[in-house]
Amino acid sequence: MNIEMIKAAKERMLNHARITPLLSSPFIDDLAGRKVFVKAEALQHTGSFKFRGAWSAISAIEKTKRSKGVLAFSSGNHAQGVALAAREHRIPATIIMPTDAPKIKIDNTRGMGADIILYDRVNESREEIGEKLAIERGLTLIKPYDEPYVIAGQGTVGLEISDQINELKVNAKNLLVCCGGGGLTSGIATAMASCAPHIVVRPVEPKGFDDVARSLRAGKIKSNDKAAGSICDAIVTPQPGDLTFPIMKQHCGSGLVVSDEECLKTIAIAYSRLKIVLEPGGAVALAAAIFKKELIEGDDVIAVASGGNVDPTLFRMALEKYS
Amino acid sequence: MNIEMIKAAKERMLNHARITPLLSSPFIDDLAGRKVFVKAEALQHTGSFKFRGAWSAISAIEKTKRSKGVLAFSSGNHAQGVALAAREHRIPATIIMPTDAPKIKIDNTRGMGADIILYDRVNESREEIGEKLAIERGLTLIKPYDEPYVIAGQGTVGLEISDQINELKVNAKNLLVCCGGGGLTSGIATAMASCAPHIVVRPVEPKGFDDVARSLRAGKIKSNDKAAGSICDAIVTPQPGDLTFPIMKQHCGSGLVVSDEECLKTIAIAYSRLKIVLEPGGAVALAAAIFKKELIEGDDVIAVASGGNVDPTLFRMALEKYS
Repeated sequence: MNIEMIKAAKERMLNHARITPLLSSPFIDDLAGRKVFVKAEALQHTGSFKFRGAWSAISAIEKTKRSKGVLAFSSGNHAQGVALAAREHRIPATIIMPTDAPKIKIDNTRGMGADIILYDRVNESREEIGEKLAIERGLTLIKPYDEPYVIAGQGTVGLEISDQINELKVNAKNLLVCCGGGGLTSGIATAMASCAPHIVVRPVEPKGFDDVARSLRAGKIKSNDKAAGSICDAIVTPQPGDLTFPIMKQHCGSGLVVSDEECLKTIAIAYSRLKIVLEPGGAVALAAAIFKKELIEGDDVIAVASGGNVDPTLFRMALEKYS
Repeated sequence: MNIEMIKAAKERMLNHARITPLLSSPFIDDLAGRKVFVKAEALQHTGSFKFRGAWSAISAIEKTKRSKGVLAFSSGNHAQGVALAAREHRIPATIIMPTDAPKIKIDNTRGMGADIILYDRVNESREEIGEKLAIERGLTLIKPYDEPYVIAGQGTVGLEISDQINELKVNAKNLLVCCGGGGLTSGIATAMASCAPHIVVRPVEPKGFDDVARSLRAGKIKSNDKAAGSICDAIVTPQPGDLTFPIMKQHCGSGLVVSDEECLKTIAIAYSRLKIVLEPGGAVALAAAIFKKELIEGDDVIAVASGGNVDPTLFRMALEKYS
């Protein structure tokens, strides 16, 4: 991964992906004890940064091959990103989802024109189904994070942050990123290492699912003990990616960890102070800025708010408890 | 009012007011039967476009006079806009609010450093209190809409829209604006008349409070029968302004009217599809795009989402009913 790949991804997505704003609020600054700048990727197409990686990867496929379509395994933000990016490229998208995926996610992805293949998590292998479909239909698999063009696409968030903090004269030492498999974190870290090397990119994860923080401490890939059990479902992955981890190891500072309760409070704060909707996994970086201030360096801090596809019941609950 | 005043306001607010994004969603396009582009002014500092007018007016005051401070009568978005713009100019702001204003609005405005003077709506005159203070302390009154520099500030929303629709190749004939006293509508209409004269700016109001729509039809200023009773409190005004009405009469197309229920539905749609928080008065233009499609012209339509300072109980209610 290098800055040229990220700049090329930015070129390819010009006027397709949104340049999302860098938001702030004096009330959040008071809570955090320093100025906090929030990169509002929940405002990206499909409600998360995943659209960038999907667009970057799809736009990089050779045209004849691309016209046959793309394939993804996902029930979440990556599925929606791939579905919309494929639709805008006027190519078919096939998304393989478990039969027990939330109906709203299936409907949303289908609503963006994707062909949804449901599989039984217990008795079927999505990889086998996917491989068969890929061969039969000539589809290209778009992986969620361990794929160079996807990482490059997510890295464009870093290029935008670099421009925006120059304009606003932000004096930050840390840039906090919501981290699952590490596609967004490694992409942004590559961009910042080139454009703003004085800023340390730090992954933020939910408590109990801090595989990246532990892997960075150990210097090698560590896994989580459990596969589920956090409200931050969008960023719960078994372990860092084979491609993303070496990049994070090279460029990132130490990881931060926040609790589910801190995420819910942050959702309510982002609602009332920034007027944006966040999902728990998209709120962890801002939660760290607010609740882990003693672990952060610098006069200002930047936090990426990576997604807003929140379950309505959970969102209402966060507002009832904390707004 | 002219385009030069708006361009000068834009210069003065460079890197102070936010350039807010123009958002869209394929799901909203489906509902509206055409592409809808939403200017997300709820993401402006203080959660509404009012910060622009406040900044524009304060930055235009002669320096020695400005240093003495500013004064506003408001319990809502204008108060917050003036308070923050004054704080960033490092000058005092005095805001006169009724004793029965919601505590959260008083706290928010005070939280931005303003000096709050409470008055008894029944037994005291805010104008008398304000005049006395202005003389004693040398304060400059910042009116909420019937003031050229305020209108010019709000007009910068139009300049940004003009740039953004060129980039995105938007093919709209109508631009819908949430309309109270007419500051935002007349400012945007002036900007569009110069930068994109093929686009007709149309005010949108809540049912029962359509003074601007009726005034435009009559060709002269008409008042509302009642002063309160809509959930769209931020845009309920007795009648169009003496300065804003002639501008709207010259430049605007016919007004549109939406119901409270349509606003609540729109709040839920903006939450789930755009990931932004809207207040009812900030949702009327998007509501018209979705629910009054037969009254709108053009392949695409633009709607300004003017504010997001919504009462938490009302917001949760909108989500419970419609998301």
